[in-house]
Amino acid sequence: MITLRNANITFYGNRGMTLEEDINLTNEYYKEKNIALIYKKPIPIKVLKINSTKTRIQDAFYEKKSTLDYSGIYREKYIEFDAKETNSKTSFPLANIHEHQIEHIKNVIFYKGIAFLIVRFNLLNKTFLLEGTKLIEFIDNENRKSIPISFFEKNCKTIELKYRPRLDYLKLIDIL
Amino acid sequence: MITLRNANITFYGNRGMTLEEDINLTNEYYKEKNIALIYKKPIPIKVLKINSTKTRIQDAFYEKKSTLDYSGIYREKYIEFDAKETNSKTSFPLANIHEHQIEHIKNVIFYKGIAFLIVRFNLLNKTFLLEGTKLIEFIDNENRKSIPISFFEKNCKTIELKYRPRLDYLKLIDIL
Repeated sequence: MITLRNANITFYGNRGMTLEEDINLTNEYYKEKNIALIYKKPIPIKVLKINSTKTRIQDAFYEKKSTLDYSGIYREKYIEFDAKETNSKTSFPLANIHEHQIEHIKNVIFYKGIAFLIVRFNLLNKTFLLEGTKLIEFIDNENRKSIPISFFEKNCKTIELKYRPRLDYLKLIDIL
Repeated sequence: MITLRNANITFYGNRGMTLEEDINLTNEYYKEKNIALIYKKPIPIKVLKINSTKTRIQDAFYEKKSTLDYSGIYREKYIEFDAKETNSKTSFPLANIHEHQIEHIKNVIFYKGIAFLIVRFNLLNKTFLLEGTKLIEFIDNENRKSIPISFFEKNCKTIELKYRPRLDYLKLIDIL
């Protein structure tokens, strides 16, 4: 048993797992424990060609997302967030977020839902929870094309990587 | 002005508009009036072949949906629903709802979200709001493969087709 457990820890260790995989595992854990219902939305596509029985897509491309990747319910609240990774060591480029997504985050906040980003600096091994309100504040007040790491260090909580749940972001939502 | 308005009424009349178009128009109205934020989720697909730059899907098929088509926030509540049409005059076939969707509806109810179906009997020109709890009750207690129209008449509110908002389903949510 101990061997198997250790083997799992190694497998799910710092190497290899993408942020998306970490989040999916965490959401499975939340569901299993009746903590929250969070799911990943499908990626929007534009279909250009489909077969005659309309069962097989033969040509299509990915559309720009206008909402965030994950949504669901937690403590009776509407929750929506996106997962972003960057290989930069110094800042998170705002080009990662489309204008429609910014608009959508503002809307979710207006309707009293919880909107945020989970931002991972891959090379620093750091994952932050960036609240939607703070993101909007930054965009409205700064003229920069990226959010410096210092902004994250100062304004955001760090999400620690653990065994289970893998990335306990809802714990931080409780605090915020 | 009057002519234009009349022209619109004719265009959006009983002919031609699908249930989905009616709902999309209604959701635009809700957003415009700051009543609710409701959007349609993309349809999940399974990609089998993609080009080398990963921009163009060359072969894919539609996957079975495991959630409902529309979700959003209304009065700080999580809301999720699906739109279904039938050409039957006597009953709504349950084959229209996948097992995973039933499971999902149960989950949304468990987490105190609002889940329902909007069911239109095309040939009867009738549209009902079927609450998730009532759908689950029916499935758990009846051994039938379809829900008879009499069940809808007895247990569901009718959504009237109007000019604007086109299909005011949130008004019924307020009552329920």
